[in-house]
Amino acid sequence: MDDTWKDYVIATYRLAGGGDWTRKAETIALGMTVGSWPGLSAARQAALQRHVGRVVSVDAGLIRIAYPLANLTPDLPSLLTATFGKLSMDGKIRLLDLTLPPTFAAAFPGPQLGVDGVRERLGVHGRPLLMSIFKSCVGLTLAELTEGFFQQALGGVDLIKDDEIFFNDTDAPFEQRLEACLQTAERARRETGQTVLYAINLTGPVHRLPEKARRAVQLGANALLINVLPYGFDLLQRLAEDPEITVPLVAHPALAGALYPSDDYGIAAPLLLGTLMRLAGADLVLFPSPYGGMALDRTQALDLAQRLTDRGGLPDRPSFPVPSAGIHPGLVPHMMDDFGLDVVINAGGGIHGHPGGAAAGGRAFRAAIAASVAGVPLEQAAAESSDLRIALDQWGGGTPRIPKGFPVA
Amino acid sequence: MDDTWKDYVIATYRLAGGGDWTRKAETIALGMTVGSWPGLSAARQAALQRHVGRVVSVDAGLIRIAYPLANLTPDLPSLLTATFGKLSMDGKIRLLDLTLPPTFAAAFPGPQLGVDGVRERLGVHGRPLLMSIFKSCVGLTLAELTEGFFQQALGGVDLIKDDEIFFNDTDAPFEQRLEACLQTAERARRETGQTVLYAINLTGPVHRLPEKARRAVQLGANALLINVLPYGFDLLQRLAEDPEITVPLVAHPALAGALYPSDDYGIAAPLLLGTLMRLAGADLVLFPSPYGGMALDRTQALDLAQRLTDRGGLPDRPSFPVPSAGIHPGLVPHMMDDFGLDVVINAGGGIHGHPGGAAAGGRAFRAAIAASVAGVPLEQAAAESSDLRIALDQWGGGTPRIPKGFPVA
Repeated sequence: MDDTWKDYVIATYRLAGGGDWTRKAETIALGMTVGSWPGLSAARQAALQRHVGRVVSVDAGLIRIAYPLANLTPDLPSLLTATFGKLSMDGKIRLLDLTLPPTFAAAFPGPQLGVDGVRERLGVHGRPLLMSIFKSCVGLTLAELTEGFFQQALGGVDLIKDDEIFFNDTDAPFEQRLEACLQTAERARRETGQTVLYAINLTGPVHRLPEKARRAVQLGANALLINVLPYGFDLLQRLAEDPEITVPLVAHPALAGALYPSDDYGIAAPLLLGTLMRLAGADLVLFPSPYGGMALDRTQALDLAQRLTDRGGLPDRPSFPVPSAGIHPGLVPHMMDDFGLDVVINAGGGIHGHPGGAAAGGRAFRAAIAASVAGVPLEQAAAESSDLRIALDQWGGGTPRIPKGFPVA
Repeated sequence: MDDTWKDYVIATYRLAGGGDWTRKAETIALGMTVGSWPGLSAARQAALQRHVGRVVSVDAGLIRIAYPLANLTPDLPSLLTATFGKLSMDGKIRLLDLTLPPTFAAAFPGPQLGVDGVRERLGVHGRPLLMSIFKSCVGLTLAELTEGFFQQALGGVDLIKDDEIFFNDTDAPFEQRLEACLQTAERARRETGQTVLYAINLTGPVHRLPEKARRAVQLGANALLINVLPYGFDLLQRLAEDPEITVPLVAHPALAGALYPSDDYGIAAPLLLGTLMRLAGADLVLFPSPYGGMALDRTQALDLAQRLTDRGGLPDRPSFPVPSAGIHPGLVPHMMDDFGLDVVINAGGGIHGHPGGAAAGGRAFRAAIAASVAGVPLEQAAAESSDLRIALDQWGGGTPRIPKGFPVA
């Protein structure tokens, strides 16, 4: 970005239809900032100069507008309201991108641990991480949940996350569940020698969640799952900024599909789940994989992941991409081709649906990961891992196929 | 709703494409609740019976699913995550409606003042209310803002709202601005004899906003403007529930256009800005009028308003509909035909763009409102109000036309 726009956020929109694009762009630049301009006195224009929006470029329906930092505060409610608030209701218009100048991006927390920090917590380097999700949570007793946790942990997963719909947890209340799962993680560690993080679903009145998160960390919580869009991006930012909340923040994309899939409206997925999640401070970001039955377009998914991991990007620390849904061991080499080493392989059905059970499902993934890191074909690795052999027989091998199943794990 | 579903929230979806709709509905009902069913033992099925989702009806792509209250907490992050969280990403699917049983709806705050309470605060009965918006806010000094406030108040408006993009207010900080505008309202009241409420834009870290709102109320604030979607619905609910926050909550629809306009995706406007805003506790709800350049479809707008005002609806108190954008005095009779007496007429350009200035703009609206309540045609009333005469000459008379201008005031 050259210096012309160093004090501006640049928004890129795609508009449908026809008409005088230049005039439309000018209407947006004024209407979303100072309201009017031509009728103002020279003195008023001078006074408002630093607050007026400017047209950066117009290329038919592809329009870029610069919004002065002087109108903004460094948070996502401000950024989204200023660039797409009322404008989102103005006909066929889609927010494709936001480009922040470094000074402004630096005012956002970004991930506090990021890829390197999460790896350090786990002591795992040089391979993708493996995450699994409870098959279900609602209605299970504490004993049933911990048994499910134990089976997953035995299989060698690095993280286990709650079901994101787990709000009414009267059968397994938050603090008791946290304590029980942490004890179970320790019990599994004595068998496997491996650390496992538990991303417990953080729910409750939004203004009390930072306090609830601090208390959870005091009780030993080592990760938190957040429904970022249902609660609003600002919650994620305030959790990331809190010096006492020192654990990985795992961002679930629930509701994102209400915003990104249309060609004409909404917010592009790479911006919504890539740039904005990283700015607000997610250490891990789940998003629809390009493989499953509800796949994100591959180009979009790779762009999204690139925005999370770009080492030259802002904020400084990268987030872990977690392409989710439809993941089974046979996809591991393909996922590493697509996303590299710094990816979290996240499976639900691909672990619980293993004929040998969840522990065998985890072991099959770990064998596939180890083989892929070593450049060994899965068919060859399966000769030494019956768990992987069974998984490949169940779901197929190294090329992506679309399995039956349900959305994001 | 018959008793069959008294312990369920019913979600209505529209799916595009083809296929086995019944099977798809069953997959949703299970996948969004307990995850799997056929493979479970009879004992597990018995234990999970009260948590499993059920198919209510399947009519080609129109599918209704019942979600057990046992899975939910009475808040919108829970409700939206449970009914549309990961499902929103599952292809072409749109959430059309949510039907809550009375026991569950009653656990939401709803408007604390509602239509009657807001009228009492103002001492205004038997006519629509009139609201105006600052022409712009960013970059203005306190003196400029209060002068703008005074001109609007002189015209006889009942409420004045901040610009929703007003986040960076270093030139007119929140508490100073509040105090200055309240003093200005009092100064105007000595001239007009009329109360005017000031909806100040509530911004800042989301977890501190209830505290900021309480402090504002202690300082005399008499209304609050909230960017509900950028901050998340839960903030609105927690403000409404707070016993110390005793002032009208004005909900701005910023970002709503990222969610409702597509035919294939997202959340229908009457649900999003009608039902959900009322449940969460908005006393006034802005939404795109069916008249302006970025109009909401008229059927949708009337349905939306109906959900806000239905006296038999839940929660008990109705919210004020505030159809916004493209509003000028000539539209007042038409708005009353569409929305009745319990509507807030909200104008930006229709007040500030009056050739006689903002005070004359307000007076023109008040004359149009008085005439319409009395059943007097505007042309006739204009004989006794030169302000109205000028407005009708400027923007036209009693039939809606689409003026140039910008989205939601």
